[in-house]
Amino acid sequence: VALGDRIKLGDYVLLYLDLERRWLAQVGEGSFHTHVGVVALEALEGLEYGSPIYTSLGRRLWVLKPTVEDFVMKSERRTQIVYPKDGGLILVKAGLGPGDRVLEIGTGSGALTTIMANVVRPDGHIYTYEVRREFLEMARRNIARLGLEPYVTFHLSDAKAGVEERDVDLCVVDIGDPWEVVGVVRKALKGGGVFVGVTPTVNQLERLVEALRSAGFVAIESVELLARKLEARAGRTRPATRMIGHTAYLTFARSTLEEE
Amino acid sequence: VALGDRIKLGDYVLLYLDLERRWLAQVGEGSFHTHVGVVALEALEGLEYGSPIYTSLGRRLWVLKPTVEDFVMKSERRTQIVYPKDGGLILVKAGLGPGDRVLEIGTGSGALTTIMANVVRPDGHIYTYEVRREFLEMARRNIARLGLEPYVTFHLSDAKAGVEERDVDLCVVDIGDPWEVVGVVRKALKGGGVFVGVTPTVNQLERLVEALRSAGFVAIESVELLARKLEARAGRTRPATRMIGHTAYLTFARSTLEEE
Amino acid sequence: VALGDRIKLGDYVLLYLDLERRWLAQVGEGSFHTHVGVVALEALEGLEYGSPIYTSLGRRLWVLKPTVEDFVMKSERRTQIVYPKDGGLILVKAGLGPGDRVLEIGTGSGALTTIMANVVRPDGHIYTYEVRREFLEMARRNIARLGLEPYVTFHLSDAKAGVEERDVDLCVVDIGDPWEVVGVVRKALKGGGVFVGVTPTVNQLERLVEALRSAGFVAIESVELLARKLEARAGRTRPATRMIGHTAYLTFARSTLEEE
Amino acid sequence: VALGDRIKLGDYVLLYLDLERRWLAQVGEGSFHTHVGVVALEALEGLEYGSPIYTSLGRRLWVLKPTVEDFVMKSERRTQIVYPKDGGLILVKAGLGPGDRVLEIGTGSGALTTIMANVVRPDGHIYTYEVRREFLEMARRNIARLGLEPYVTFHLSDAKAGVEERDVDLCVVDIGDPWEVVGVVRKALKGGGVFVGVTPTVNQLERLVEALRSAGFVAIESVELLARKLEARAGRTRPATRMIGHTAYLTFARSTLEEE
Repeated sequence: VALGDRIKLGDYVLLYLDLERRWLAQVGEGSFHTHVGVVALEALEGLEYGSPIYTSLGRRLWVLKPTVEDFVMKSERRTQIVYPKDGGLILVKAGLGPGDRVLEIGTGSGALTTIMANVVRPDGHIYTYEVRREFLEMARRNIARLGLEPYVTFHLSDAKAGVEERDVDLCVVDIGDPWEVVGVVRKALKGGGVFVGVTPTVNQLERLVEALRSAGFVAIESVELLARKLEARAGRTRPATRMIGHTAYLTFARSTLEEE
Repeated sequence: VALGDRIKLGDYVLLYLDLERRWLAQVGEGSFHTHVGVVALEALEGLEYGSPIYTSLGRRLWVLKPTVEDFVMKSERRTQIVYPKDGGLILVKAGLGPGDRVLEIGTGSGALTTIMANVVRPDGHIYTYEVRREFLEMARRNIARLGLEPYVTFHLSDAKAGVEERDVDLCVVDIGDPWEVVGVVRKALKGGGVFVGVTPTVNQLERLVEALRSAGFVAIESVELLARKLEARAGRTRPATRMIGHTAYLTFARSTLEEE
Repeated sequence: VALGDRIKLGDYVLLYLDLERRWLAQVGEGSFHTHVGVVALEALEGLEYGSPIYTSLGRRLWVLKPTVEDFVMKSERRTQIVYPKDGGLILVKAGLGPGDRVLEIGTGSGALTTIMANVVRPDGHIYTYEVRREFLEMARRNIARLGLEPYVTFHLSDAKAGVEERDVDLCVVDIGDPWEVVGVVRKALKGGGVFVGVTPTVNQLERLVEALRSAGFVAIESVELLARKLEARAGRTRPATRMIGHTAYLTFARSTLEEE
Repeated sequence: VALGDRIKLGDYVLLYLDLERRWLAQVGEGSFHTHVGVVALEALEGLEYGSPIYTSLGRRLWVLKPTVEDFVMKSERRTQIVYPKDGGLILVKAGLGPGDRVLEIGTGSGALTTIMANVVRPDGHIYTYEVRREFLEMARRNIARLGLEPYVTFHLSDAKAGVEERDVDLCVVDIGDPWEVVGVVRKALKGGGVFVGVTPTVNQLERLVEALRSAGFVAIESVELLARKLEARAGRTRPATRMIGHTAYLTFARSTLEEE
């Protein structure tokens, strides 16, 4: 077995008991309390990722490096977040990668900001707009836990009044009235740039698509992803009884240059 | 409207008529034939992305920069490819980003290789294993179109006999008998590294999960994604009549370090 | 093996080769042509259901008694029909059974009429309204093939102008503007009677639900059913690649008696 | 508004507050307690269905006639029941109607027995086999509430040892090892009769389908239904966040007569 990375002071780690019981903890002073016992947070320093650690009650936890999904699903939040399944489709359909510049309108809790910042770094950047100060601060805290702040500019500002950025590769809009910023987005995007709208209701979806059509966007596609878990056990494999039935509709489009 | 990037000789462009009719073409000599007329490929040079171009029959096409999805869906293929929805979930659940090192077992047509190479560049790398020479060559051609070859090492080799790489962050397995490489993967992964299995049948899924459990992997989760398109039109919005019902099951797991 | 029923002259039978190739044929003079050969229709008389018959090219077909689903899926149609999955849910949620009286607004091709007539017979009845003569005639022909005409009254009439029936147990509405008949339905239904609306678009669904709420209906629930086929084969079981992504939304509600 | 049926002593009624709070109660002596107040059960006698009734706390409840779905979803149960969506598909795919004779193997809580008995009455019949006495008694109680006992014969017996019935139209099997009764079923079914298997796991599904193929059944199809609720509100319509991800797979097949 390969040696994993060593855990350092200040690192966030995932303490894993089972799929329903896993916790995000920061290595440092103090102790972390779970209902299966206490873990001394200093004891984690110097461990390799993938190691077991035992609680005060003798229960074994696995110490894992949190993935982007772990951070997002364990983030502080007051809004509906963009889920990993939806964030992943955005990454691939937009072809997002290192060096890309992204305009995000509607920071929310910063879940999608996190997912995108992780792949555009170190030379790309996310410019994110949010009108509610407490959300922007929460998103900033969430993103700081992954060390991704250098790649994100937070604007406490209403994008409907315009944005500073130009020639961005991708613009993602996750606000209640996304049709209101279609014009702003069009000016900010590169020719042929990718637009993504995240809308929980069908009415928002419909109105957004109509606005995109009117503004000359092309390749407009709306999609929803349903994720279903499978419970695999020898001879008794079946889908999980419960699932999430809806998160949001995603609308993708490409901008065009106006014809004379 | 912002000025888009200028198109250069040798670039691949997407010629877009509508959602069902879009073509990938390389800028250079010769002409590109469609049933709505011919486009002179040299005429594309120097255009900005997002511009219109007119075919010999006077039909307007939009000239777009292909996204990773466009390349993947238009790739040469002889195998079932990993779809954007599935590739995207892998990116986010594994937290893949610049600098990561990935072991891929089962290159196939290189769709997932492409999706991953695009986000680990320039310092990360994909090491991909395939036993069928014609598939490996096809994948190489597909990946070359995006200019991602520098970030991929192609092994014409059976990973069951072992792999060279150690301390990789992620291992993705997309072969018919993924349980056969669980031991190999375990040695190659960092402590706590992420495993992903891509399996079309439930039987493969079940056997893989059992093998992962036996080998000490934890946080084992299997999931399937259903993507449904929406047809949005003012006052007549509805889901599309036809959809893809199944691509593959995805299984995620984390490696652990053995206890003494 | 039990003896099946004997086939009589005039019976409709299902000639079954495989899941994609099955035909509905009527026993009588003449011959039935398929691409795997010809079947003499007289030769079917007196056979037991479940028997094999051989075509002129020596291919074996199985002679089966058509189910309601077989009739519906093989019916003459010019409209989107109500699918078995949706018809079945209507039967159970409405608790439809022998003796019930049903008002149907929007006969269409008669698929749902057929499904319902089959369970309310012999003492119940379906009263169905359709404004397009050619649809009503088509529905009548479809229903006659199952011998269910005695249980259906066909009205070539616009239900928006009112219906004759009162005290019906269930009312099913499958027209483009179902909200327009909510008042008519309310008068026709028994106290507490069941309303079902079948709507392909979300906009129709929304407007219908608002109209039902305004008219004092309660227990309003909207649902969609997704049917996915499984391909079961030892060691290679998986969902089918293609599926129907959408047929219609179903809205269920209960009428109430007005309070003084 | 039409006059609803009058409620009689001994009737079961549905007391409806909202979608999450509805109760099944029997009209008679005593009172029915809810967290929104008490209802005197005698006061219900003579009311029309669809009427309001007020609790001791002044909350209005609607008095509705329970549908088959209401009875099934409110039934006493210790097993996973067959859901209305699944029961409905069985009714339509089997074409079940008045007069049909059904063999059911695995009574469970009697949900499907109820759904089927309601449509085969008064001349048809359900013959149901169950090996666990307490389940059979529970199913009997559940079915008695709808007054459907005359149409059901309960066998406390293991169908694997054989069944008395012959020439049945439909056989439904809902036991853990359905492949074990394929031979028994084949003998009991009419030629061309319909087989339905209800299986929660993929492994059961696969093994059942293989057994059906070996036994000469044809038109074998397996399907799963996903039901998703829609929340319709003017301008804010969207699918419900939570849904049931899996109940059971349904397998349909037709029996054939053996060839000499």
